[in-house]
Amino acid sequence: MKIAVLPGDGIGPEITAEAIKVLQALGLKFELETAPVGGAAYEAAGHPLPEATLNLAKASDAILFGAVGDWKYDQLDRPLRPEQAILGLRKALSLFANFRPAICYEQLVDASSLKPELVAGLDILIIRELTGDIYFGQPRGRRTAADGHFPGAEEAFDTMRYSRPEIERIARVAFEAARKRNKKVTSVDKANVLETFQLWKDVVAEVHRDYPDVALDHMYVDNAAMQLVKAPKAFDVIVTGNMFGDILSDEASMLTGSIGMLPSASLNDKKQGLYEPSHGSAPDIAGKGVANPLATILSAAMMLRFSLGQPEAADRIEAAVKQVLAQGLRTPDIYSAGTTKVGTVQMGDAVVNAL
Amino acid sequence: MKIAVLPGDGIGPEITAEAIKVLQALGLKFELETAPVGGAAYEAAGHPLPEATLNLAKASDAILFGAVGDWKYDQLDRPLRPEQAILGLRKALSLFANFRPAICYEQLVDASSLKPELVAGLDILIIRELTGDIYFGQPRGRRTAADGHFPGAEEAFDTMRYSRPEIERIARVAFEAARKRNKKVTSVDKANVLETFQLWKDVVAEVHRDYPDVALDHMYVDNAAMQLVKAPKAFDVIVTGNMFGDILSDEASMLTGSIGMLPSASLNDKKQGLYEPSHGSAPDIAGKGVANPLATILSAAMMLRFSLGQPEAADRIEAAVKQVLAQGLRTPDIYSAGTTKVGTVQMGDAVVNAL
Ligand SMILES: CC(C)[C@H](C(=O)O)[C@@H](O)C(=O)O
Ligand SMILES: CC(C)[C@H](C(=O)O)[C@@H](O)C(=O)O
Repeated sequence: MKIAVLPGDGIGPEITAEAIKVLQALGLKFELETAPVGGAAYEAAGHPLPEATLNLAKASDAILFGAVGDWKYDQLDRPLRPEQAILGLRKALSLFANFRPAICYEQLVDASSLKPELVAGLDILIIRELTGDIYFGQPRGRRTAADGHFPGAEEAFDTMRYSRPEIERIARVAFEAARKRNKKVTSVDKANVLETFQLWKDVVAEVHRDYPDVALDHMYVDNAAMQLVKAPKAFDVIVTGNMFGDILSDEASMLTGSIGMLPSASLNDKKQGLYEPSHGSAPDIAGKGVANPLATILSAAMMLRFSLGQPEAADRIEAAVKQVLAQGLRTPDIYSAGTTKVGTVQMGDAVVNAL
Repeated sequence: MKIAVLPGDGIGPEITAEAIKVLQALGLKFELETAPVGGAAYEAAGHPLPEATLNLAKASDAILFGAVGDWKYDQLDRPLRPEQAILGLRKALSLFANFRPAICYEQLVDASSLKPELVAGLDILIIRELTGDIYFGQPRGRRTAADGHFPGAEEAFDTMRYSRPEIERIARVAFEAARKRNKKVTSVDKANVLETFQLWKDVVAEVHRDYPDVALDHMYVDNAAMQLVKAPKAFDVIVTGNMFGDILSDEASMLTGSIGMLPSASLNDKKQGLYEPSHGSAPDIAGKGVANPLATILSAAMMLRFSLGQPEAADRIEAAVKQVLAQGLRTPDIYSAGTTKVGTVQMGDAVVNAL
């Protein structure tokens, strides 16, 4: 079991260190190899995704990823900015299936912006297609407008696209996932406006014929953004494209009020995967020892389950995380009166002890 | 002052009737002419936006629009579906500037999904570009994929695009609006991924030089979807493209918990405008006399202010709406214990009485 560890920027190194500590406490054998990524890699090697890092990622069963990004790289040319590393990894490893759970932990219900009754027990799974759509479609660039409102003016453009097999494979991932849950898939599209998402809707409906035990409904993306606020618990699995998934998965994770708890997984068809917390690099608190390592620790659990064939070890980690929450331990992001405030390392230690 | 009245489908006819009643109670002189639109027009004339309706709209100073859409038209070919009417009107009249306020009325704070302290006093304005972006970009359609993950497969595609002058004019609208408010604009983009929104960000920053008294910040769309949930009151004016604006404006309106109260305006550079409630046609409650007419009545107020040069009349309507709320009158969508439940017509009558 070879794991590439890419800590990245900001709080990335602190939180991945805790996840590794937890992995090492399991008594399993891993081969761990660390490499720079994002801004850290730009500093070290002049590129956010150096060839050595990419090769390591390709040669590993799984990637444990911290976070990338910092204001200080904002002025770099786009191809050199930290987030290109994550786009580059998704593309190079064909990590088309992004799993983003939005779970509201019992003890953290009050941290949500939403009223407790709307989020207590929330457990939805957003499955976002991750290698297609307008993120990677060609052509894109700048040119002189040939038509439109201002012919002759400078314009910029991008191409949104999805092919039938790209939609089919992500739809299957969603229906399979729903089978292990509450057997309901909501496919989010904008078929009333976009050709791309009319095809999306048609193909998801076709694939659904192979999953008669799973309920499917279709929802426009604007409505989905509303229904997530109004009644998030009405969803089970949401499947959508790369762009809409970017927006809706962040909205959903923030609804829980504890984004510091939420892991994510990005898989290809060989079950190779990249595992990272749903939150970002938080440069403002980097190095202060206060970041919440639980999302990264839970990402390591997803890694054990999805890429490393160790579901029991994954269960053990998840149970340990629940236990430390039950003990009342909280990093500052999830702290509330009556609980015990701890730092990054203490939280990692507590999970190890709970194992 | 010529007003085209397009009631449309579902609850559209009921709610526009109340808005007209209110307009007529002002003692001003309007020329009102009604025409079918959406599914109603498809039934009457075989097209959701018949030529006579379009010509009437073009020849009017303003359009009072109810709502369009019904499940029963879902099987029609896309060009015949009700929502094509609204896209057609936006395009034919170049209604590029969409104003969507998200206001949380004092008396309705508890209707929000969000905790009261997060929404009490909420007053944000989303300015959405409405005639560009991936909504209207060409080319679009289906074809055989020449490259990508599955060359040779069927694919669908759309084109996102914005030209410099399109961005400039909507940025000016946003800065001008912010000047009359809290002098803060948040421009929402996805410049880290999209060429179109790198140009967007650059041009908004350039236009900002003419408005040094207004603060500008840039935010990625995924982050904006989160911040709206976390701390909506931190925003003043949000300006963004057509697609992101569709999603974020619906999310923001639902945050208030009282989307039945929210008007909208869509303007061109001659101040001709289309005015419609932010909510939809709600076919499930159509004809029952329970729909909330206040969003449409408030849309008529925006019409008086923006297109008809009657700001005092607009103020009078807005004050009358506040008064009926203070009197405790509520349609079912905003009803809570201790208030008085009324129907569509009673609510319209109450606004007329309050004038
Ligand atoms: C950093 C950015 C390119 C990325 C995306 O848009 O996919 C991020 O927002 C995410 O969701 O992982
Ligand atoms: C009906 C649809 C085409 C429309 C849009 O996407 O613009 C609607 O959602 C809106 O926001 O007015």
